[in-house]
Amino acid sequence: MVQKLTENILKEVIVRRPDESQKGDFGHVLLIGGNNQLGGAILMAAQAAVSSGAGLTTVATDVVNRTALHSRTPEAMFIDWTDQSQLDAAIHKSDVVLLGPGMGTNQFAVALVEHVLDLVNQEQILIVDGSALTIVAKENLVFPRDTFTVVTPHQMEWERLSKIKIGYQHEVQMNEVQRQILNIDVLVLKQHHTVIYSSAGQYQLEIGGAYQATGGMGDTLGGIVAAFVGQFKRNPINSVMAAVYAHSAVAEQMAQYSYVVKPSFIADGMGNFMAQVQSNI
Amino acid sequence: MVQKLTENILKEVIVRRPDESQKGDFGHVLLIGGNNQLGGAILMAAQAAVSSGAGLTTVATDVVNRTALHSRTPEAMFIDWTDQSQLDAAIHKSDVVLLGPGMGTNQFAVALVEHVLDLVNQEQILIVDGSALTIVAKENLVFPRDTFTVVTPHQMEWERLSKIKIGYQHEVQMNEVQRQILNIDVLVLKQHHTVIYSSAGQYQLEIGGAYQATGGMGDTLGGIVAAFVGQFKRNPINSVMAAVYAHSAVAEQMAQYSYVVKPSFIADGMGNFMAQVQSNI
Amino acid sequence: MVQKLTENILKEVIVRRPDESQKGDFGHVLLIGGNNQLGGAILMAAQAAVSSGAGLTTVATDVVNRTALHSRTPEAMFIDWTDQSQLDAAIHKSDVVLLGPGMGTNQFAVALVEHVLDLVNQEQILIVDGSALTIVAKENLVFPRDTFTVVTPHQMEWERLSKIKIGYQHEVQMNEVQRQILNIDVLVLKQHHTVIYSSAGQYQLEIGGAYQATGGMGDTLGGIVAAFVGQFKRNPINSVMAAVYAHSAVAEQMAQYSYVVKPSFIADGMGNFMAQVQSNI
Amino acid sequence: MVQKLTENILKEVIVRRPDESQKGDFGHVLLIGGNNQLGGAILMAAQAAVSSGAGLTTVATDVVNRTALHSRTPEAMFIDWTDQSQLDAAIHKSDVVLLGPGMGTNQFAVALVEHVLDLVNQEQILIVDGSALTIVAKENLVFPRDTFTVVTPHQMEWERLSKIKIGYQHEVQMNEVQRQILNIDVLVLKQHHTVIYSSAGQYQLEIGGAYQATGGMGDTLGGIVAAFVGQFKRNPINSVMAAVYAHSAVAEQMAQYSYVVKPSFIADGMGNFMAQVQSNI
Repeated sequence: MVQKLTENILKEVIVRRPDESQKGDFGHVLLIGGNNQLGGAILMAAQAAVSSGAGLTTVATDVVNRTALHSRTPEAMFIDWTDQSQLDAAIHKSDVVLLGPGMGTNQFAVALVEHVLDLVNQEQILIVDGSALTIVAKENLVFPRDTFTVVTPHQMEWERLSKIKIGYQHEVQMNEVQRQILNIDVLVLKQHHTVIYSSAGQYQLEIGGAYQATGGMGDTLGGIVAAFVGQFKRNPINSVMAAVYAHSAVAEQMAQYSYVVKPSFIADGMGNFMAQVQSNI
Repeated sequence: MVQKLTENILKEVIVRRPDESQKGDFGHVLLIGGNNQLGGAILMAAQAAVSSGAGLTTVATDVVNRTALHSRTPEAMFIDWTDQSQLDAAIHKSDVVLLGPGMGTNQFAVALVEHVLDLVNQEQILIVDGSALTIVAKENLVFPRDTFTVVTPHQMEWERLSKIKIGYQHEVQMNEVQRQILNIDVLVLKQHHTVIYSSAGQYQLEIGGAYQATGGMGDTLGGIVAAFVGQFKRNPINSVMAAVYAHSAVAEQMAQYSYVVKPSFIADGMGNFMAQVQSNI
Repeated sequence: MVQKLTENILKEVIVRRPDESQKGDFGHVLLIGGNNQLGGAILMAAQAAVSSGAGLTTVATDVVNRTALHSRTPEAMFIDWTDQSQLDAAIHKSDVVLLGPGMGTNQFAVALVEHVLDLVNQEQILIVDGSALTIVAKENLVFPRDTFTVVTPHQMEWERLSKIKIGYQHEVQMNEVQRQILNIDVLVLKQHHTVIYSSAGQYQLEIGGAYQATGGMGDTLGGIVAAFVGQFKRNPINSVMAAVYAHSAVAEQMAQYSYVVKPSFIADGMGNFMAQVQSNI
Repeated sequence: MVQKLTENILKEVIVRRPDESQKGDFGHVLLIGGNNQLGGAILMAAQAAVSSGAGLTTVATDVVNRTALHSRTPEAMFIDWTDQSQLDAAIHKSDVVLLGPGMGTNQFAVALVEHVLDLVNQEQILIVDGSALTIVAKENLVFPRDTFTVVTPHQMEWERLSKIKIGYQHEVQMNEVQRQILNIDVLVLKQHHTVIYSSAGQYQLEIGGAYQATGGMGDTLGGIVAAFVGQFKRNPINSVMAAVYAHSAVAEQMAQYSYVVKPSFIADGMGNFMAQVQSNI
């Protein structure tokens, strides 16, 4: 049975940072995506990750995106995603890898997805989003068995991955079975009211609205999820759920003042929202 | 007889988004323009389209404009406008095509205008602005018969297109006849008080002022028109009129605090203005 | 005798724009400067010109500065300053030419200064600033006899131009004689309290302060002067004086809240300041 | 004995600027860093230096960082760090050199560090940070004997430099001895509560918190230190201590409204914070 995801998840996850801590304690997040057309996607993810409290943020992307990345978010580090030794070193050093925003689906992207799925280890958390999900489906790739894996498909992407047609995706048990077969630890199935599937059960988001129906919304969510699992380590399932809740809660606040909520605004608003939750405001 | 365009048009057009909707419902907008000198024009159009609620925004432009596009508006996707297969695919996928801001009038631009006029189909809405209007006039091109076409000329551009000299453009009937002969569905004739010609009659804007007399004002309007016809589909004529009204209404609000209103500020202000109209503020 | 420049100059110059006006009425401003190291200077001038109400703003600069220009100020148009035919056309179309911010003093810059001084005509207003003043001094160039010319030197730059040593620059008559010999219509001699020399007499600025002592302050002033003489045409001497006054008045307001006032912030604040003056706030 | 660093240091250092002053009086700051991956670090340092009141700011960095630098902080000047004659001239003209943010540790970086350590003179202040500290340690370089030198290591970087293991770094005397042996005038040992060692004694910062545990925090501090020693010349040790205090005080203010404080926000907030201190707010 699908339970309601409530704001309690926020208080549970977004705790006060211990005084004696340093950036290394809050996760080294690696974001992989952004080809020479869709660079904006990975830029939004990076902005969201930094604003949401990732300890360190590195972006592996097409070299054409470097200047816009640094112009918007100088806190993020850059890696040319065609430089395999750099990339491998970065993957190795990361606590969290977000794979997919704006990466496209060409041959290079396919090889990259295969490589990353192959390289991540059991101590890391992998988040697969956007084009990378299309590639996994099309190429019949498998998610790594030993890595905690979060996927964030739209309904159509989930149809491609799970072979469950959109019309049947309300059947909770089917999604649950496919989630487990596919080695997915947390499935964030994006829809009007997003449902999150995991070993903790199924939870439905009941906030958010059509003011979020604009390109880039998912890329921003990806960055927030990455930052949350990187810094709130006690319970990664809860961290994903808190990220999903926070993303829409910020949008809902902003919708009071804006007919459509730009994804980059949600990113900017995360720090303030998290301060509200953590009661130091 | 020219009627007065009132703020009623806003309430009529800017409706609450249905809960069960997604970005695809609010239009895939393709903006074509921006050569290696005038890139700012298409950047302002893109910023305006995203801020005004376009579901998806793609910009086909000179490759030199990519980084500034992503730096300013990461929500927009990029296409190199010299890559014809990419461009054709993008046109094919679009609901709305805005053609012209900052594209210049060289040989490449001429060929591009011809190509786009040729390719758009009857299910799309085409908006022709700026340099593209000069090209259409000079090359004696014809607007597509079966595509809903909006043009947004200044008076001088309209003179070139219609052969009606500026001194005679107050003669409503002449503009109306030329509009129909030229296959123009909506003519937005920009002037001190802009007049909009369509099968719904002639409407004059009575708001706005000289604080809008600065370069880029029209490019921003183009982006707003594109976003409005893309997302408010019931009545494209009304959507154009609402866009024109909103553009100047935002400027009028901002003019209380700024001697001249920068076009990029109008773009940024659209989301808030639309929220005011739609009464959720 | 040096008179005090008072805020009356603002009301006199910054008048309400006539309703029936268009961007062409407010000046086409061409800004020439910004080499491959000092690009920020021309970017600040451009931002200031647009924010201060220039009708149209074009920037002729090194091609490396294009992306940053469009990222910051999409309202401005770009010209590659090594493309002489483009440059000549731009000069020809301009009402105002600002020459110098960040242009450096290499051979190319020298040739460019010579070319511009040669090309401007009697209907245009020329403003010479920064590196261009050093070049004029070093190469013994002459300012155009028939073009209304404004120069904005620091005291050291004025020493180089006029041969009047800094220690003697308080001697008003000497500056006045040199101003006339050098074909300078308005000399803005920048110092602790800037003095403006012209046929209208000598006026001293008594506002502003050490919070303005930071790199880029003069580049921003250059952009404001260009916008003012471009749009407020009745009396160019007064327009220059109003620009100088406004620049420091904005800084003075901002200094209440900022220990040092960044030049780019002054640019951003101009529109609001001018609205205050013009009493529509 | 370690004393507590109190806010008194702010009032002592951040004094009212003398009326008759100019940008040259507030220090020409040269920032050297930013390779083709870590450019954001030097961009944040530059933003911080400009916002904190440096008279003139020049950035010597990889050429790929120029556009993002000018997009964010047009007040800063650019130098291609591979152009040795430009670099040497810039070093020569500087009052303060900050060496290290984001420069990496490859062969070029090593040579650059050696060159700068060799070139700075006794009238300049040198600040060594980030990768440059790693290089100094690894290559057994020595800090210049006659240049006032500030180093800002994390505990691990200090271990590498001083051979004092982290577990022993609470032993004040050991740090002090190593500081003097290594020709370090001020050692800012970054940790939970940063300690500053100099001939004035040892002072511990007791403000700041885990909201600062995010990448780029140290780069921003570097820029603030550079601006402070450049403009507040009476007592460089005090200026460093005031910079360290101000950096965390701004963060503490912002943490009321943001769960994590982005380094680039601290940079932006410095001007306002310094105005509060200097009592003109």
